[in-house]
Amino acid sequence: MSAQQYTIGMIGLGTMGRNLLLNMADHDVAVAGYDTDASKAELLETEGQGKRVKGFVSLPDFIESLTSPRTIIMLVPAGKVVDSVIANLEPLLNQGDILIDSGNSHFTDTNRRVAELQSKGIHFFGMGISGGEAGARRGPSMMPGGDKHAYEVMKPVFEAIAAKVDGDPCVTYIGPGASGHFVKMVHNGIEYGLMQLIAETYSLLKNGLKMDNAAIGDVFDQWDQGRLQSFLINITKDIFRYREPGADHELLDDIKDEAKAKGTGKWTSQAAMDLETPIPTIDIAVSQRDLSKYKKLREQAAELYSGEGRGIDAVKQEYLTALEEAFFASMIITYAQGMHMLLKASREYGYELQLTEIAKIWRGGCIIRSKFLNSIYQAYEKNPQLEHLLLDEGVKTQLTAALPGLRTVVTSAVQSGIAAPAYATSLSYFDAFRTGRSALNLIQAQRDYFGAHLYEIIGKEGVFHTEWVPKEEVDLE
Amino acid sequence: MSAQQYTIGMIGLGTMGRNLLLNMADHDVAVAGYDTDASKAELLETEGQGKRVKGFVSLPDFIESLTSPRTIIMLVPAGKVVDSVIANLEPLLNQGDILIDSGNSHFTDTNRRVAELQSKGIHFFGMGISGGEAGARRGPSMMPGGDKHAYEVMKPVFEAIAAKVDGDPCVTYIGPGASGHFVKMVHNGIEYGLMQLIAETYSLLKNGLKMDNAAIGDVFDQWDQGRLQSFLINITKDIFRYREPGADHELLDDIKDEAKAKGTGKWTSQAAMDLETPIPTIDIAVSQRDLSKYKKLREQAAELYSGEGRGIDAVKQEYLTALEEAFFASMIITYAQGMHMLLKASREYGYELQLTEIAKIWRGGCIIRSKFLNSIYQAYEKNPQLEHLLLDEGVKTQLTAALPGLRTVVTSAVQSGIAAPAYATSLSYFDAFRTGRSALNLIQAQRDYFGAHLYEIIGKEGVFHTEWVPKEEVDLE
Repeated sequence: MSAQQYTIGMIGLGTMGRNLLLNMADHDVAVAGYDTDASKAELLETEGQGKRVKGFVSLPDFIESLTSPRTIIMLVPAGKVVDSVIANLEPLLNQGDILIDSGNSHFTDTNRRVAELQSKGIHFFGMGISGGEAGARRGPSMMPGGDKHAYEVMKPVFEAIAAKVDGDPCVTYIGPGASGHFVKMVHNGIEYGLMQLIAETYSLLKNGLKMDNAAIGDVFDQWDQGRLQSFLINITKDIFRYREPGADHELLDDIKDEAKAKGTGKWTSQAAMDLETPIPTIDIAVSQRDLSKYKKLREQAAELYSGEGRGIDAVKQEYLTALEEAFFASMIITYAQGMHMLLKASREYGYELQLTEIAKIWRGGCIIRSKFLNSIYQAYEKNPQLEHLLLDEGVKTQLTAALPGLRTVVTSAVQSGIAAPAYATSLSYFDAFRTGRSALNLIQAQRDYFGAHLYEIIGKEGVFHTEWVPKEEVDLE
Repeated sequence: MSAQQYTIGMIGLGTMGRNLLLNMADHDVAVAGYDTDASKAELLETEGQGKRVKGFVSLPDFIESLTSPRTIIMLVPAGKVVDSVIANLEPLLNQGDILIDSGNSHFTDTNRRVAELQSKGIHFFGMGISGGEAGARRGPSMMPGGDKHAYEVMKPVFEAIAAKVDGDPCVTYIGPGASGHFVKMVHNGIEYGLMQLIAETYSLLKNGLKMDNAAIGDVFDQWDQGRLQSFLINITKDIFRYREPGADHELLDDIKDEAKAKGTGKWTSQAAMDLETPIPTIDIAVSQRDLSKYKKLREQAAELYSGEGRGIDAVKQEYLTALEEAFFASMIITYAQGMHMLLKASREYGYELQLTEIAKIWRGGCIIRSKFLNSIYQAYEKNPQLEHLLLDEGVKTQLTAALPGLRTVVTSAVQSGIAAPAYATSLSYFDAFRTGRSALNLIQAQRDYFGAHLYEIIGKEGVFHTEWVPKEEVDLE
């Protein structure tokens, strides 16, 4: 083992880390990997046979093997593990080295680490990666943010390994600070929303139209041929068709309906609330995953309220058409919420986000890639100052045509007692968004009535208070 | 001014602080108040003429005036102000003194302060107070948590000044730690949900049925005579009738529809997500307040999508009956979400909450007091181990009878394009809650497909992974 022969190092040789290294090696980059687990370091070398790939279990040896200034990517679980890796690494690094956190770190952690490492002369940046195993191996979408110098150094490698759409790599410099991790977090929030919409579609087809898995798989397959074409719809079709070897039914039926989460959806909702930007479709996707965990209570409630449910009474082909429209409309609305949150965050946190570029790099490689992202890209390309996706004329035309289907589907869910919260919420977000004069003046009046919180008057400067009734008349019981 | 003659001291002489002191003075407690603003200290003495009430602008004089061990309540804005008051106060306090934070502090801040002050021998506790100005003056609902010794000392005063329902004071020891502030926070979350439901009701009556303020006020007045009787409905009726002297229309019409918030609703939603407990009606109330702030975008969208809205086509009296049912059902569901969150928090944070007692003290004095809280109280009294309010037989009977109205109202909103997100979300929460076998097995399958996140199988130990399709077949664009 001779020193300083590998260009890029990876800490954390789980599936994502190994695949990303192998992807780089495919593009003639000499790469080294480090993991405390020797079997993973070995696996890396086995999988990378014939390529310039080396696995290490000694951190100093790993560091020594890298060309200087060093370029090290971390792909380890978010949270304390990242801090502990950095603490171990720091004494071994030199000024000018580049350290990249490619895990799903919370953006506030990244802010802290950027500041800490900058003061020590280390170029640190946070980069979100999406695409799962397959994406990492053959072309992910990458969202690097932070130290611009470090990005420029890495750019050729990133562009080489990224997914390509029309020849354009799905990677761009996102912005300063923790913007890379922030954008990846919102990406995941949108992913939560879309997955919940697909789950509700499944429920409407299964419980409403009484279709079996094969027929449901065909619906998703058909959707994937049209304007709904997307990674998530595509894999859903596969899932409905998958049987274990020798099984007489699809695996899906055996899987527990208690959804897990790694927290990025929750973070998105919590951060949106701090930014005072509404993303209710994502919020409801988070709370539906939470609700799914209360399996026992749900079963008790199902028994107690067994009289509530019934099938959907509709002409099947007409209903399927409405459902396709409903998904299309809700998908547009979900993306729109996410993009709006990015715009607000960009202003609030100084991220200098280019929404055009973000839409562009999401078109390939990542989990939320879809045909419709081209329309989003075009909307922002036409008008980079667009304040809200739903205000684009092209989007409006597509959305308006699909709204009748969305209204039909939500109505059928409400009448049949089949829960479709993400569909219902997408629609109510849209209807509230297009309400110029809302009813929330009443909330301001109530707040002033009971708490003297003051209100504003249309066309008048200042804030005001009213004694709505004489105080002694307020009934306290 | 002789030393040590006042039993209870108040820091912060805003409306709430002054009113609470005057309330105590009415019950023969000698009280002192401190504020840096001399006019507020004077106002306290003016308002408290003839009572044992004294205002101070010097902190040392104020402290000296209190009997020992001292009992000091803070009513100052949440956040840094509380910390700075504590820092100024600490050198002046003795071991054994009692310090009570009665503002809307975030429960995690209270946790930190409890620990800091405990180590210095000071009995600190956090107490939520609800009831607004009028409640503070004549009988609030109080949620004290933390140091039990301090509570025992304060108990007679608290019970004297609290609102009474059937002779029972609306105050009880909530539990250890920050439980008092936590319960008050969830109270406020429920308040957000109910206020949003009322705002949507207003919108349906105004935009759907084209009713004027007077007629809408009459609807709320009528509701307040029946099972919906509650503080919030009661004040809403007043608001619809209020005109400024000489005005030719109601003040409500002039108030801006951009709702403000102090953050407690947001905190509730964020904390619920950390606890993995769904409270979607509260979440949507938070995001609707956020949406209301984007007035310009809403106006643009209203123009762009002007073809979407129409009135509600229904027989008025029948619709009003359905709407009353819809509100009743949604109100039950909103309370149920809040109570469920309290149960989860109690287990997670060791709060030892008695939901029976909490329902009991919420029946009077506080903003969410209502006739229906008696039913909640009875449900938990009958079964203190009740896991979810919707699983109570009595609640079930009331809710089931009201569901047809809720389904009618959500359908009408969906069809007419009038946003009713809190109604829609309450219903979809209910329908999802009573789904024994949900569609979220699909989400688990998807997560395993793209991220190898594993899934569980019904009736089988362990976690599993499947290669759903050969990796090289995953399409990356």
